[in-house]
Amino acid sequence: MANSRFEYVKQFERENLLLPETYLIIRVDGKGFHKFSQEYEFEKPNDLRALQVMNRAAMNLVKQFPDIQLAYGDSDEYSFLLRRSCTLFERREMKLITTFASFMSVNYMFEWNKEFPEKPIRSERLPTFDARAVVYPTSTLIRDYFSWRQVDCHINNLYNTTYWNLILKAGMTGKEAENRLIGTVSSDKNEILFKEFQINYNNEPEIYKKGTIIVREYNDWKTLSNEVKEEELSDRQKQRLEKQRKKADIVECHVDIIKDEFWEKRPWLLQ
Amino acid sequence: MANSRFEYVKQFERENLLLPETYLIIRVDGKGFHKFSQEYEFEKPNDLRALQVMNRAAMNLVKQFPDIQLAYGDSDEYSFLLRRSCTLFERREMKLITTFASFMSVNYMFEWNKEFPEKPIRSERLPTFDARAVVYPTSTLIRDYFSWRQVDCHINNLYNTTYWNLILKAGMTGKEAENRLIGTVSSDKNEILFKEFQINYNNEPEIYKKGTIIVREYNDWKTLSNEVKEEELSDRQKQRLEKQRKKADIVECHVDIIKDEFWEKRPWLLQ
Amino acid sequence: MANSRFEYVKQFERENLLLPETYLIIRVDGKGFHKFSQEYEFEKPNDLRALQVMNRAAMNLVKQFPDIQLAYGDSDEYSFLLRRSCTLFERREMKLITTFASFMSVNYMFEWNKEFPEKPIRSERLPTFDARAVVYPTSTLIRDYFSWRQVDCHINNLYNTTYWNLILKAGMTGKEAENRLIGTVSSDKNEILFKEFQINYNNEPEIYKKGTIIVREYNDWKTLSNEVKEEELSDRQKQRLEKQRKKADIVECHVDIIKDEFWEKRPWLLQ
Amino acid sequence: MANSRFEYVKQFERENLLLPETYLIIRVDGKGFHKFSQEYEFEKPNDLRALQVMNRAAMNLVKQFPDIQLAYGDSDEYSFLLRRSCTLFERREMKLITTFASFMSVNYMFEWNKEFPEKPIRSERLPTFDARAVVYPTSTLIRDYFSWRQVDCHINNLYNTTYWNLILKAGMTGKEAENRLIGTVSSDKNEILFKEFQINYNNEPEIYKKGTIIVREYNDWKTLSNEVKEEELSDRQKQRLEKQRKKADIVECHVDIIKDEFWEKRPWLLQ
Repeated sequence: MANSRFEYVKQFERENLLLPETYLIIRVDGKGFHKFSQEYEFEKPNDLRALQVMNRAAMNLVKQFPDIQLAYGDSDEYSFLLRRSCTLFERREMKLITTFASFMSVNYMFEWNKEFPEKPIRSERLPTFDARAVVYPTSTLIRDYFSWRQVDCHINNLYNTTYWNLILKAGMTGKEAENRLIGTVSSDKNEILFKEFQINYNNEPEIYKKGTIIVREYNDWKTLSNEVKEEELSDRQKQRLEKQRKKADIVECHVDIIKDEFWEKRPWLLQ
Repeated sequence: MANSRFEYVKQFERENLLLPETYLIIRVDGKGFHKFSQEYEFEKPNDLRALQVMNRAAMNLVKQFPDIQLAYGDSDEYSFLLRRSCTLFERREMKLITTFASFMSVNYMFEWNKEFPEKPIRSERLPTFDARAVVYPTSTLIRDYFSWRQVDCHINNLYNTTYWNLILKAGMTGKEAENRLIGTVSSDKNEILFKEFQINYNNEPEIYKKGTIIVREYNDWKTLSNEVKEEELSDRQKQRLEKQRKKADIVECHVDIIKDEFWEKRPWLLQ
Repeated sequence: MANSRFEYVKQFERENLLLPETYLIIRVDGKGFHKFSQEYEFEKPNDLRALQVMNRAAMNLVKQFPDIQLAYGDSDEYSFLLRRSCTLFERREMKLITTFASFMSVNYMFEWNKEFPEKPIRSERLPTFDARAVVYPTSTLIRDYFSWRQVDCHINNLYNTTYWNLILKAGMTGKEAENRLIGTVSSDKNEILFKEFQINYNNEPEIYKKGTIIVREYNDWKTLSNEVKEEELSDRQKQRLEKQRKKADIVECHVDIIKDEFWEKRPWLLQ
Repeated sequence: MANSRFEYVKQFERENLLLPETYLIIRVDGKGFHKFSQEYEFEKPNDLRALQVMNRAAMNLVKQFPDIQLAYGDSDEYSFLLRRSCTLFERREMKLITTFASFMSVNYMFEWNKEFPEKPIRSERLPTFDARAVVYPTSTLIRDYFSWRQVDCHINNLYNTTYWNLILKAGMTGKEAENRLIGTVSSDKNEILFKEFQINYNNEPEIYKKGTIIVREYNDWKTLSNEVKEEELSDRQKQRLEKQRKKADIVECHVDIIKDEFWEKRPWLLQ
């Protein structure tokens, strides 16, 4: 509302509009979660309840923003896939990433306090997240992006599982466990787990090995997809589509997203 | 730690390094705070306790990041001035703005729950903020930037004070109050307040008229400033300077920042 | 080679890497060509020899840069399509656009002096071009981009042809011709040309109506395309492909690029 | 003029507006000038007439664009300083750098053909330049920028002078000369020149040792500078100032620009 002779300073503001008709990925990443997990005494190697706090926070974001088609999370990070034709905040990068960082942070804090009434968030260490946006022009790149994150999850989890068993069950110090694992490949770690701790890594919970997928499921995709080209829809049809998007089931699962099956069953993700 | 054939997707990430040796301003802005204020039943025209929640959240940020020299806030927004030579996050724009949005959000939520135990934050409406960074090459621009925000605060507060008196005391509807104020200038609003509600606007609390300033005060500035050129300092001297910055008093006040006095008393702000 | 304490100023340089795996279009545009055409007395409405100078200059660029698959020009502008996987200058935007602007300018000047020895370029008005790059994620967008330019060519040429006939044959001033054409649609201009000047616009030369296309033709595309996925090729195969690209015929034509035929015959353009 | 349903593709265009109130430097750089100098048989280590072609081309740019206050060149590169308040092309980066690359290229070609009628530019190798823009917020940075380029000129010229004397007078091959110079510092090269070739490097021509400065000289600076703050000038005063800028003498010299003297005598450069 206000106008003054000082308003010219607005000319120094810059916007970056993310390239239209590309897939958007926004990835949020916990800040200092190593210390956060110490402060709030996470169970090791994985704290299931803390993971569920992450997943519920991410679920709230997916519900909040119908443009999100898919989310994938692991440890203290989450990647959100927004559809190609998304025009949320006119695709202004700063607005998108700060909004996602903010929503993730307060939702995490809210869900934490609900899950852990016995150790609520203290002012000394609040849960915070940074965020970045990346645009990808093709569906192949999107497949490879999520494969990258899920492979990363697997590698980290195998390492952490072995590392913490060496500490908690074999009584090693952190330094000793680290040294033991230097130069080992996956099969070495599997063997350590099996021989020394009678753990078959394949039987570990899927949520740890695969991470968490949150996906918008359209049961009526066939009907929808007959109205194929969104740019040719009437405004009324677009509103209906938007409504269906909002009503779509949002499902959490812990499955392979590297192979084709996941994507072939959900053609709307990479349409 | 992990490496896979999918990692090439990282090549699509982009960074924006904010121009070195310019002043940085990061402004955070409440998202949907009109509805937020309805949901949590803010007092009108100003809710002092809610304002204090904002101010405490901002204060926590100033304490957290020693590069912040000055902060100015009003209503649901806050502007943070980071010093010219700041290299926080290597001046990566995305990292800076998402971190500030995140810290502001969780600090606001934390301080809210402390201040208002009778109406804690509910999941239906969490407090969220977006953020943007602007770089300014000269000290004049920084002066004008803060003048812009303080003039804005004044104009908005005069409007809101009149608007809400028309509603709360004269029994108007929102629409009627709005119509009454169309086309009025400051003196008109002052007169309405005085004649109809016996309010002398000049006597309104400074926190509403001027907004809130949070400033890092250096009592030993003389000594510090003898070690003038930061780029010529030894590492040890830099560490000492950094320490002094961390120990500096951080003061909240509600004063004029448009005139020279405020800035002349604090030469470190625009050094 | 040189290193000095001043070298830190390089830190202020910024690069923009154009998004990988998107089509690149670089468009060069003559600067002040209205005055240029007056200075060198272009024939009106079209100067065929001057157009050929443009086309030869553009042809030289296509020969110079094997990444260019297609070029389209009209009047004083030319658009160059670089293939999706192009990594020329590591896709650095500044390098790409300044190089294209520079090459176009000197090639134009060179070809001009060869074509017009009777009126060589004089220092008072040298031919200069600016340039911009645009990235497009899909082949549909590329089709629409070139359609946009060819429709533009048609509209401008119909206007100019009518305008200059009104001046040269009907003796109007520029102002009068302009006024006569205000509010007219295509059919009106066709009628003016036909009724007043016995010109059937459809019989005008294709080079004026359609502009000029320069395209890299691969006669052995079938063989090439069996080695489909470039990212999976060995270095030796890539070198062979690069060689074939360099040896490909480069053809100039003046045909419709809005309809499907042009593109269906050349699948390599939008592969 | 033209409008069509394809025009939406313009939405993919991006502009970068260079930050206001910062000094602009645009540096043009010859492309492949090593080969260019072989093709046109430059004298070694320095070809005075070829250097003069560069300088005249740069001089033409300074005359063309009154916003240029200073230019510095050496070998195949030139840096142009545009004043802080410059709004040429609304400070659009792409427009600025492509225009400078284009102007430099055609001016070079034009001046070359005038200077060397016996070996005019041939189509096999045209002179081309790329360009980049850098913004600097302070005058210190501008001083350091030009110091950086002049130190670079000195280091390169000392090297080249020694290298070519070893080849031309001592009969070494390029490889031998290179090996001889590996690990040498300035004083070593001075000594080689003096002992083996009786050359006192200090007596070498200033144009080779210092490079070339082109500067806009204001004899009436005192009067001008009384009208200090440009933003407070009336339109009429601004036009007068602009006129004076256009009429200012433009001077070429070969002097030290690292020390204070050059800058203190020309306060308008860093006002």
